[in-house]
Amino acid sequence: MVAAATTATTAIIGLGAMGMGMAKNMLRRAIPLTGYDIRPEVRAGFAEAGGRVAANIAEAATGAGLLIVMVVDTRQVREVLLGDRGALSFLPKGGTVMLCSTIAPSDTRAVAAEVAEAGALLLDAPVSGGQAGADNGSLVVMASGPRAAFAAAEAALAAISKTVHRLGEEPGIGSTYKTVHQLAAGTHLVAAAELMAFGARAGCDPQKLFDIVSTSAGQSWMFDDRVPRMLNGDHAPRSTVDIFVKDLELVLSEGRNLSMPMPVSAAAHQVLLAAAAMGYGGLDDASVVKVYERITGAPVRPHRGRGETV
Amino acid sequence: MVAAATTATTAIIGLGAMGMGMAKNMLRRAIPLTGYDIRPEVRAGFAEAGGRVAANIAEAATGAGLLIVMVVDTRQVREVLLGDRGALSFLPKGGTVMLCSTIAPSDTRAVAAEVAEAGALLLDAPVSGGQAGADNGSLVVMASGPRAAFAAAEAALAAISKTVHRLGEEPGIGSTYKTVHQLAAGTHLVAAAELMAFGARAGCDPQKLFDIVSTSAGQSWMFDDRVPRMLNGDHAPRSTVDIFVKDLELVLSEGRNLSMPMPVSAAAHQVLLAAAAMGYGGLDDASVVKVYERITGAPVRPHRGRGETV
Repeated sequence: MVAAATTATTAIIGLGAMGMGMAKNMLRRAIPLTGYDIRPEVRAGFAEAGGRVAANIAEAATGAGLLIVMVVDTRQVREVLLGDRGALSFLPKGGTVMLCSTIAPSDTRAVAAEVAEAGALLLDAPVSGGQAGADNGSLVVMASGPRAAFAAAEAALAAISKTVHRLGEEPGIGSTYKTVHQLAAGTHLVAAAELMAFGARAGCDPQKLFDIVSTSAGQSWMFDDRVPRMLNGDHAPRSTVDIFVKDLELVLSEGRNLSMPMPVSAAAHQVLLAAAAMGYGGLDDASVVKVYERITGAPVRPHRGRGETV
Repeated sequence: MVAAATTATTAIIGLGAMGMGMAKNMLRRAIPLTGYDIRPEVRAGFAEAGGRVAANIAEAATGAGLLIVMVVDTRQVREVLLGDRGALSFLPKGGTVMLCSTIAPSDTRAVAAEVAEAGALLLDAPVSGGQAGADNGSLVVMASGPRAAFAAAEAALAAISKTVHRLGEEPGIGSTYKTVHQLAAGTHLVAAAELMAFGARAGCDPQKLFDIVSTSAGQSWMFDDRVPRMLNGDHAPRSTVDIFVKDLELVLSEGRNLSMPMPVSAAAHQVLLAAAAMGYGGLDDASVVKVYERITGAPVRPHRGRGETV
């Protein structure tokens, strides 16, 4: 009956673009879910989707056999778990924290030690797939932790993901794979912007260029996912520029710890920093293309009314 | 009867990793094909595949309604077409040169002017898809040129490609799209190497890391295609490091002409230059990973005999 009791008491903290999609997929699978987010309008959306809104973090954690944390960075993770009336003081003994935020492996290990001290388990479980993956329940999870933590998270993992990579029993392994993975996601994002702006400047029709590159050797998942937003001038935030500034900082600081120079990632990070400096930090990460557009003056928008191009 | 006469006299110069695959697909479609390459062993392979070997460029061009040029760079293109006993002096009036090499748009326009002066037509037709695409007849062609040039090349294009993008009538347009495209291919190649070496250094199992990234938001066509070669230590050249040094040079010099800074591409180019400087210029481009392996000392090879990783 332990499994049933656990399933009955799942909670999630952080209902942004990722957390909300994950939450809805759990609700669709009839996992009774309590949720909390600091933003009242987000809590209201969660209630509409059928979730039970907690008044605060403490209430969300109380009695939760599984507590999913999907906030932005280490500071927020620590605040949620260890802050004044933080979750660890209210989580039942033997409860599991499933940490989905992308943070440094060393931070994950530090959090895991505090979780253990509180008598709970940590599943280090960052995800990939973006808002689309969260919405569709098709995330890829890079997870490590004790078997009991995997067991407690089983129903939730099945609801949110297409693949769960089980990478070992120690905390920090999942975060390591995710950090390394972000090198590609962040670099490909900036490369996509650099390519599209270069093409626009060189006289290519950006729509035609997208069609060609996305079906050729220049293709990437990020290119396919983000360039349509650039073409549409759609900068409503799913994942923001600021989040990728943070993720590539993570890549570079892990690299520094390991004496590993990464010139391509460092260049991509600089461009994202420029985007943040120009005021686009809170916009969708595809708006990094604006850095290049402001340099070239050539908008990355489809040419109108022209069958042939250039 | 013009079409039949044209089909009867197709020639190809340059039978490397790309040209040979293209040639074989034309031969499979029963396009009678004359070929030439400066390397005798390559000519022998072409003869075995059913091609008619020309004794030299002049002989290949003589009577060719369609002359396909698939050599490495502008210097070789000019040598083939305009050198001593070059093709343009022997090509019949009204013949078509289909130029598949990746060269600068300005170089393509200059070549087109000389082709026109010789009374022939130019199809600016660079391709994407790598050796696999050439072998499978599934290349993507980015083509521009006069309608008569497209008509002359029709049977050849159908044999070598899955998609022909018809981008306009002027020479240089195809080359522009291809140059812009190479920004992504080259940057993604180096990003793949940077990621895999970072992961190996951080303790990830490179095989597991490949499996995760290639099915997540970090995926790219180049990652999927080149990382298996890194994992296998397979550096037999298909496309070489030197070719990508040249292609990103092209990207950056076009960018310079257009006042377009491209920091991510520039960083990737520097790493490829380092690979060439370390003696890997003639190896497969996936060997750019050796630059990072020599820095970290951690080989990008699958961990053996371990189910779980790190």
